[in-house]
Order: sequence, then structure tokens, then C-alpha cells
Amino acid sequence: MDNINISQSMQQYVKQARDASLALANIDNSDKNRILHEMAETLRSNSDEILVENKKDMNIANKMLERGELSHSACNRVILNQIKIDQMAQNCESVAALPDPTGKMVKATRLDDGLDLHCVSCPIGVIMVIFESRPDVVVQISALTIKSGNAVILKGGKEAQNTNRFLAGLIRKTLAKSVSFPENAIILVETRDEVTELVKIRSGIDLIIPRGSNELVRHIQENARVPVLGHGDGICHIYINDDADQEKSLDVSLDAKLDYPAVCNALETLLVHHKFPNSWLSNILIKMQNAGVELRVCPETKKRLESFPDLNLSPAKDLDWETEYVDLILSIKTVKSAEEAVEHISHFGSKHTEAIITENEELAEWFLKTVDAAGVFWNASTRFADGFRYGLGAEVVVSAGKTHARGPVGLEGLVIYKYKLYGNGHVAGNYSNGKKSFIHKEI
Amino acid sequence: MDNINISQSMQQYVKQARDASLALANIDNSDKNRILHEMAETLRSNSDEILVENKKDMNIANKMLERGELSHSACNRVILNQIKIDQMAQNCESVAALPDPTGKMVKATRLDDGLDLHCVSCPIGVIMVIFESRPDVVVQISALTIKSGNAVILKGGKEAQNTNRFLAGLIRKTLAKSVSFPENAIILVETRDEVTELVKIRSGIDLIIPRGSNELVRHIQENARVPVLGHGDGICHIYINDDADQEKSLDVSLDAKLDYPAVCNALETLLVHHKFPNSWLSNILIKMQNAGVELRVCPETKKRLESFPDLNLSPAKDLDWETEYVDLILSIKTVKSAEEAVEHISHFGSKHTEAIITENEELAEWFLKTVDAAGVFWNASTRFADGFRYGLGAEVVVSAGKTHARGPVGLEGLVIYKYKLYGNGHVAGNYSNGKKSFIHKEI
Repeated sequence: MDNINISQSMQQYVKQARDASLALANIDNSDKNRILHEMAETLRSNSDEILVENKKDMNIANKMLERGELSHSACNRVILNQIKIDQMAQNCESVAALPDPTGKMVKATRLDDGLDLHCVSCPIGVIMVIFESRPDVVVQISALTIKSGNAVILKGGKEAQNTNRFLAGLIRKTLAKSVSFPENAIILVETRDEVTELVKIRSGIDLIIPRGSNELVRHIQENARVPVLGHGDGICHIYINDDADQEKSLDVSLDAKLDYPAVCNALETLLVHHKFPNSWLSNILIKMQNAGVELRVCPETKKRLESFPDLNLSPAKDLDWETEYVDLILSIKTVKSAEEAVEHISHFGSKHTEAIITENEELAEWFLKTVDAAGVFWNASTRFADGFRYGLGAEVVVSAGKTHARGPVGLEGLVIYKYKLYGNGHVAGNYSNGKKSFIHKEI
Repeated sequence: MDNINISQSMQQYVKQARDASLALANIDNSDKNRILHEMAETLRSNSDEILVENKKDMNIANKMLERGELSHSACNRVILNQIKIDQMAQNCESVAALPDPTGKMVKATRLDDGLDLHCVSCPIGVIMVIFESRPDVVVQISALTIKSGNAVILKGGKEAQNTNRFLAGLIRKTLAKSVSFPENAIILVETRDEVTELVKIRSGIDLIIPRGSNELVRHIQENARVPVLGHGDGICHIYINDDADQEKSLDVSLDAKLDYPAVCNALETLLVHHKFPNSWLSNILIKMQNAGVELRVCPETKKRLESFPDLNLSPAKDLDWETEYVDLILSIKTVKSAEEAVEHISHFGSKHTEAIITENEELAEWFLKTVDAAGVFWNASTRFADGFRYGLGAEVVVSAGKTHARGPVGLEGLVIYKYKLYGNGHVAGNYSNGKKSFIHKEI
């Protein structure tokens, strides 16, 4: 699996990153933490220069906004200020305070006298992170990859390229001053052509993490030849069972839809048992409506709510069930049973976060076991699905994948393990010819 | 990411498997074990019929052998007999005896009073296994996927299709007799067209495991759109340092090359420090030569061994360093330092298994940390890299990947985790508006 069709310059980047990753694997946690603190200091002492570069980008971003090439929110995310720079510096310090994710003994087995097998966590190697708008991602990801001993190839958007370049340069200079750290632990690539090539690489990059719009993530997932950690849609459901508590149903649904509608863990579809009291359902929906939420309902829901004329209900189309609104829109479907709710989720869900409201513990446990999603919640808002709220310390990305790492991913998503075997001249033949036999004892 | 260009019948298979996986997630370990014992019994009581079907395949396989479409060894792997059938039955029983890999608490965190987060291991979902020749893989993989609660789509080679079909049918009948088990937990697809389509699927299948020739694995890795667990080449090195013990160098090198040269954990390239005594090196190589090994050496090695005329040394070409011989051939390179050995391994190794022979503990630890491979061994033969020898209980596949699972993969490679959040009407807004704050206490 050679990297055919990959240009020499790109192969060079990958080789530099790979060489750096070999050196990184041997750096002590105390050295990594020292560098992270130096990074924080460098950011603070260079804040004026950072803001000058960011000003240039803001000019570019504003022009892109005028031409309709950038959204308002993306444009806003480019802006840095003194507070944000200080947050970046603090981010480096808080990553330093986390435990080292590498070098942990996962399992140790004595295979025989003098023959010990250690399964130990280690860096993945070379990671590529593709992101948009926010230049603070340069610092955040560099801190996480340094802490986990990985080399990283970063690609940001052109709307923030001056800031990205300056920040990556500061970090590389900090690394270069150290004896043990390879400067190429952080490599920034800038053009779209470069990233198009790198995404198609077959070896050398071990993992790609896209952070940005659904379109970006989908494009990477479609084209990448190496593992991708990320997620596209977040179509989250709440299922309200017939026995659900009135207040919990109300509180959880409203929070899940209204706390921050523009994000992937917001509620998109409410599934309601046909025996859940209509007046309670109406109460939930009236509050949604008063908060500006457009309500799109199935025919059955329309019918059961006929006696509540204050509700403004439009009919849901087929497309609604598979749409991530990330907006003040909610689709509502009446179901005959928890089984039907699970079937609907299985068909239309995006495996992100799914919740059930019920007082029936057995039913809740069945739902949590059966529903195939990264987060399965009982009587709690889907909005809790988040690295900070989960207490992970740092969030690398949210993954909707079913292998490696799932849901909000912390530093442990940036490591894998290797098997270290300590022998004393042991040969395998002695165990097949019966001279010796394995102990296989956990140590 | 719709499954465009995937036929209705294939989409139907995937839907059946996915529906089965939902039901499987809820089955108790005792029920899974009962089914595994019933499978063992069914295999034993149907052994005559299995042998009849296998006879048909042997006729086909022999004709393919005559036409040069199948190798001798592949043809031999199709054959079943009473002993092999009994081994398949025992395999089901031994998988039943393993601990359930699902439902394990990975981590539990109290986010707040009454709000507990459980990270729990769970099945991956739908797995596709593509294999060649050996029909016993049908039973082995079915046992492992049942134990881990996954649905599986199996695709074997046409040289064993009658046996594969009969065995899959027996297992499906056993499942169908049970109330709790979905028959579609095991689905067999038969034609090459079907697998070509399924490999390109974008959703519905969560993991593809190719088990067979390097060509098969590479083809799947090139074409798959979902994660793949497997490995192509195994180019394993042993590095002999200048201070290496004579006897250990000899024993380990000979075992690694000669114990079973046709497999991926066999030694392919010997790297030798230029100060390692020439007479000792000559002794190792003479023994290799006497065992029928062809020796291909770098110019430096040729030169240092000039005074040993009994050695028959041919020059190694560039291609030799990147070739997996899986045969009685060994390439030998003299290096100036451990660093040069590690650089060679980094460039030419396949990240499978790499060993160092030295009495220097510090150097060994450096090698084990720096070398990027699934197995890194000190004074032990590369042949130990194997699920049985590692004590994993069952080997699903050997992976050369850097994410999810690495090296010999046991049942834990067939599970992932989900986050179960147990609340009592908790809403996220209360934690951002300062009304409440997180505890984040491990429980």
C-alpha cells in the first residue's frame, strides 16, 4: 500500500512527522509538562503579536463573509482577544495537569518463568487534525498531542491562516528550544490541495480527526484511507414512556431542545407513547412553542392534540425524521410502544445520544442496553453528552464510530497499546514440542 | 452517507443483521453459553452430513488445484475430518468458558447527586468476516460473535461453499430453536459480487475482518469504507546488539526463523551490530544455512564474514529489505548502532513484531519504547506473537492497525463501550447557569 499519487513534498511532511513521533515516544511526562507550561508562557508573552496576526485574518474573514463564502458564526469563531489568548494558555496548563495517558499498564501476564508480557498504553503515532475557523484549535490540539506523545499534522481554514501560522510557529519555536523535543511534533499544512492529498494517504498517518462542519467530516470520511475519528450528524431522540413523570418529561425535553439548539447533542425528535397524557404533552409543546420552536408532528400526534387549539402544529414530512435541524425546530412522533421507539431510533438515529423518560427501571435498563448509541440516558437531558460534563478533563473530539473510541473522546482516544515481551532467550519451539508449558498467570 | 450503488438484496442482508444485533445486545451470558454448547452438540451429531458436504467441496477444490486456481496448502485447508469436527465443537465449548466481554464497567463517575455515568462495554454491532479455504472459520467466528453479542455476515471461499453453507445452516437452526436468539445473528453470503458490494458499504456494517492471504487483506483495506481489522505483511526483525549474549542470539534467531517460516511472526531480517563478534554471527548463519535457509546479506556483512568460506552468502537487493519471504530465506544487515537498527525497522518494518537481543536493560527499554510495532520483544523469539501464546483465550484476528485493537486480538476486539447516564430529571442548563456544579467523582 504505497502512497502512490502523493507528492514528494507531502511525503516529506509525513516522514518528518513520523520521525518526530519516534522521538516523542520516549519523552517523560515531566518534560511534556514543562513544554506545556512554556507554551502557556510563550502565548501570554506574545499576545500582542497574536492579535496583530488575528487582525489580518479578521479582515480576510470579513471579506469572505461579504462574498458569502463564510457564515456569520464561522467568522465570529476566527476572532481572538486577550481573554481567549489567556484561555489558550490556561488550556496548556490544564492539559499538563492531566495524568499521562501513555505508559499505563493495561494488563501484565506471566507466560512462563522469566517470560513476562506487558500490555502498555502508547502513542498512536502520527495524527492529522483538520479544522475550520477557530485558531485556538492549533493550541488545544498541540497540547493534547504533546501530552499523548503523538506527532500532529494540522490543517486549518484559510480564514484564519495568519493566526494559525503564527501560533504553530510559536509552538514549534518552543519545542525547538528544548533538547528532547522534535520541532516536527507539530506540522502545519496550509493549502487545500495539500489536505486533499494527505487525506488520501495510505500509510504514514495513523488517524485523521476532522473537527468542523458536517460537510467537512463527511468529505473526510468518504475519502480517507486511514481511520477517521469524528462525527457527522447528531440526530438525538427523547422517548417519553406512558408512565413518565410529568415534571421530568417537561424539564428534560425543554433543556435538551432549548439549552443550545445549534449543537449536535440537542434534541431533534421527540417520541411519545400514545398513552402519555395528552394534556402533559400539550404542556411540553406549548412551552416549546412559546420559546420559538416550530413543531412538526406525525398524523397521530396531530389527532391526539386536536383539543389544544393554541398549539401550532405543522405536518412532519418523511425527511423530518432524518434531519438534524440544529435549529428551533422539533419533530414529534407518537409511538405505540417502547419497542416502536427503539425501532425508530435504530432506523433514524445517528448513534450519538438517545434518552428515555420513564419511572420503570426494568424498561430503562432494556432501553439503555438495546439502543445502539454512544450515549444512552435515563431521565437526563441529551445535552450532558460532552467531554467536560462527563469529567474527561479534555475533549479531543466527539466520535460516532463504533471502534476505537466512542462519544466524547478524551486523551485516551489518542493512545493505543503495544505488547512488550521480556524474555531471557526464550524460544517458542519449546512450547510446541512439549518441553515447556505456558503459565498464563496475571501479574 | 447513504448506501448508494448497494443492491436491495444486500441492503436487506445488512438490515437483517442490524435487527439481529439489537436483539443480541440483550441476551444474558448464560443464554449465550447455552447456545454455544448446543452448537457443539449439533456439530457432533451432524458430523456424517458435514463430511458429505465437505467431500463435495474437496472435489471442487481438487479441480481448482488442477486448473491452478488454488494452491496445495489452500486445498488442504478445505479438508475436514472427524477430529477437526470435534475440535470445532470443543472450540464452541471453550468460547463458552471465557468471561463475557460485554457488560463490563470500564469506568463509573458520579457527575452529581443522583446523576451517575457508567461507561460499559457492549457489542460493536454488525461485523463482516471474509475468509478463505478453512470452513472451520464459520464455527470459530460464529462462536466468538455470539459470545460478544455481535451479528456477523460471513463470506467464505467458493472452494468450501458446500461445507460453509451446511455449517452456517446448522448454526442458524440452533439459533432458531431458541426463543431469545435471532437466526440472523449469522448470515452467510456466497458470491464474489455480493462481497464486492458489501465491502463498499458505508453504513450498517461496523467492522470488516478479513482473514486470509495478504492479497485478500490488502484488497479489503483498499476498498472498504468502514473500519477494517486485519493485517497484510509481517516483516519481523531481530536486532542483535554488540553486547548480546551468544547463546540467546543463536537460540532466539534460529527459533524465530525456523520454528514456522511460513507465518507472519517469523523472522525475515536480522540486523547485527558491527561489533557483535563475527565468529558468533557466522555460527548463527551456518546453523541457518544447514537448516536450508538462503542467506542474503548487505555488503558490510559480506565483508565481515569473508574469513568464513563455508557460508554461502548472496547479495541482498533493495527489494529484500521490504519483502515478507514467509520462506527459508533470511536477509542480514550490519548496522553501526541500535539507532540505525531502529531507523531501518521504522522504514521497512510492518509494525508486527520486532525484537532486540542485548544484556543492556536501559537499551532494551529504549528499544521497546521507541520501536513502533504491536509487539516489541527483549531476548525472546518473534514467534511468541500469537493470541494463544499471549493467553488471550481466543484469537479473533491479528491486527497491524494503530487504532481500536493491535497485535493478536481476543474477544475484547469485538466490543466497544457506551455511556449510560442515570439521572432523575437532570437538565444541563442548571450547570451552566451556576445553580448546580459537577462533582466528577469516580465511583
